[in-house]
Amino acid sequence: MTDTTDTRTGWLSDFELEQSRERLPILYVDAIPVRVDSRGEVSHVGLLLRVMPDGSISRALVSGRVLYGELVRDALLRHIEKDLGPLALPRVPASPQPFTIAEYFPDPTVTGFHDPRQHAVSLAYVVPVDGECAPSASALDLVWATPPEAAGVSMSAEMTGGQDRLLRLALGHLGLLP
Amino acid sequence: MTDTTDTRTGWLSDFELEQSRERLPILYVDAIPVRVDSRGEVSHVGLLLRVMPDGSISRALVSGRVLYGELVRDALLRHIEKDLGPLALPRVPASPQPFTIAEYFPDPTVTGFHDPRQHAVSLAYVVPVDGECAPSASALDLVWATPPEAAGVSMSAEMTGGQDRLLRLALGHLGLLP
Amino acid sequence: MTDTTDTRTGWLSDFELEQSRERLPILYVDAIPVRVDSRGEVSHVGLLLRVMPDGSISRALVSGRVLYGELVRDALLRHIEKDLGPLALPRVPASPQPFTIAEYFPDPTVTGFHDPRQHAVSLAYVVPVDGECAPSASALDLVWATPPEAAGVSMSAEMTGGQDRLLRLALGHLGLLP
Amino acid sequence: MTDTTDTRTGWLSDFELEQSRERLPILYVDAIPVRVDSRGEVSHVGLLLRVMPDGSISRALVSGRVLYGELVRDALLRHIEKDLGPLALPRVPASPQPFTIAEYFPDPTVTGFHDPRQHAVSLAYVVPVDGECAPSASALDLVWATPPEAAGVSMSAEMTGGQDRLLRLALGHLGLLP
Repeated sequence: MTDTTDTRTGWLSDFELEQSRERLPILYVDAIPVRVDSRGEVSHVGLLLRVMPDGSISRALVSGRVLYGELVRDALLRHIEKDLGPLALPRVPASPQPFTIAEYFPDPTVTGFHDPRQHAVSLAYVVPVDGECAPSASALDLVWATPPEAAGVSMSAEMTGGQDRLLRLALGHLGLLP
Repeated sequence: MTDTTDTRTGWLSDFELEQSRERLPILYVDAIPVRVDSRGEVSHVGLLLRVMPDGSISRALVSGRVLYGELVRDALLRHIEKDLGPLALPRVPASPQPFTIAEYFPDPTVTGFHDPRQHAVSLAYVVPVDGECAPSASALDLVWATPPEAAGVSMSAEMTGGQDRLLRLALGHLGLLP
Repeated sequence: MTDTTDTRTGWLSDFELEQSRERLPILYVDAIPVRVDSRGEVSHVGLLLRVMPDGSISRALVSGRVLYGELVRDALLRHIEKDLGPLALPRVPASPQPFTIAEYFPDPTVTGFHDPRQHAVSLAYVVPVDGECAPSASALDLVWATPPEAAGVSMSAEMTGGQDRLLRLALGHLGLLP
Repeated sequence: MTDTTDTRTGWLSDFELEQSRERLPILYVDAIPVRVDSRGEVSHVGLLLRVMPDGSISRALVSGRVLYGELVRDALLRHIEKDLGPLALPRVPASPQPFTIAEYFPDPTVTGFHDPRQHAVSLAYVVPVDGECAPSASALDLVWATPPEAAGVSMSAEMTGGQDRLLRLALGHLGLLP
């Protein structure tokens, strides 16, 4: 999760954002980008390689803050474009219901979802993408894993902050957990 | 709901199907076809005009039986193609979870969902369609209504068997109920 | 929605909260309290009578802010106790998935969910309560309405800020929308 | 999954049921019984020990057929009483939406959900039980496992027909998958 490209937040200085983070839960969205076949079944899950808040390099989902005045749907679209490029053609779900929520805490023992910077609550969605994806901004790389690969232990070992668990919750929601 | 075009059921004669209908709940799928804009938001809901089991002419959703050996996903695709034509390009949801179930009974007072022929339990899904839709088979016509139109009383008055209620449940799931 | 009883927020002065509200979406929970019968079916929906942010008196759902460091589950329990008293015996759902989210804006035309004070995003849950409920704190009264009563126009007319719509979305999720 | 105690099905002889099973998908319910604490969080998952359709002894979920004319809610209550006894005090969810569906086929390679007798489609629900549970009818024993135990490989090894996977999907829905 990164805010470095939230260029629309000029009115909220880094110092002010830092202060708010110590006093309010911050609203996030997490998107699990997927490729679907013509029958609508998920064939691949997209995973970014990027630098995490704690400095490690990790596989990660699309994730980011919801801005003041921004609709959740628009936050999803903005972060997908930021991470997968402008040609990804995401299909944000028609229903506003997230498949789950993830509660990130500075203390990793509270929920298992960990963000050293803040208490963040994330609305999580599975988002099929039809177009060409190119990792942009802070993402170093993008891989497409089959559902069994995504659920495997080697993938988990490369993910931090509990995002491997969020990925498994998404696979469960899709009925694709082995 | 109609089975007249279930041509794959040759091994289950009309007489045999009639007998089973008196002894087992029959598994159905209901699909609410929608048009979505580039942000994924529903702009229109598709409603068929067709002859219902009770002989009346009614606005109706895409609906039909799941066959022996058939996956729910494939039943959805088959009935959408049957009712909207082969170029509808449906996007069946990646998750198998229906947004609700509808329990149809010969007695209309049990649940409000009514099928004079049988006890049927239907799995209901919202399905965006991207392509060209043309009413086919038993459907006489197809209209696209905006969510407020679809939720209105004049549309409800043209639907029977409780399908107007199922439509409102779908709009609620989409956050689009006025 | 009120924060007057959020006594744990001493470290965030009213002035500071006011400032944050102009810069970040604030995380809320909405709870729809229900009575269920022995089969688990909803018999009644609980509605508070209270003073709303805009000064009007209105029927309302249980609603309030999630505090820094607080789990969503605990925020639900705290607000239900605040509004329905300590003997309500709420049964917060085991799954963290809200049945919908409501996005409240100072501008009532954005989503139809309106909060003159802030941009708030609320996670909405249906919560069966088994115990004795007594309106407390800011609530003036509590009534139990049957699902058809709750869905009726006279109830809607007494609710503001879009909470009548949220109530209908809950009834839809429960399959109880007429 | 067993039908030996479906005593209400006298009008459908074993021979006739056998015939229908070769021609129609059979509607089932699967219930994952759980213990919840006062905050509504799942502390334990209930697992039966019983003889499976293929003759093996296996850990299993509560499962069974929906009868002609029976509501899904009543089928859940009946099978929970059949397997956990009359004092289990189940709290069937207020919403009719299952958390997933499981499609069982005689061929174990189709979906991974396997029933040698039939094509069955099951609606799956998590059901908190408050009362005393005693394995009855065909169940030999009942154990309560913590979520980590339930998700573990040793438990999986004792389950057949894909029910270990359904259990993991339930844990995912509950946000309790490790």
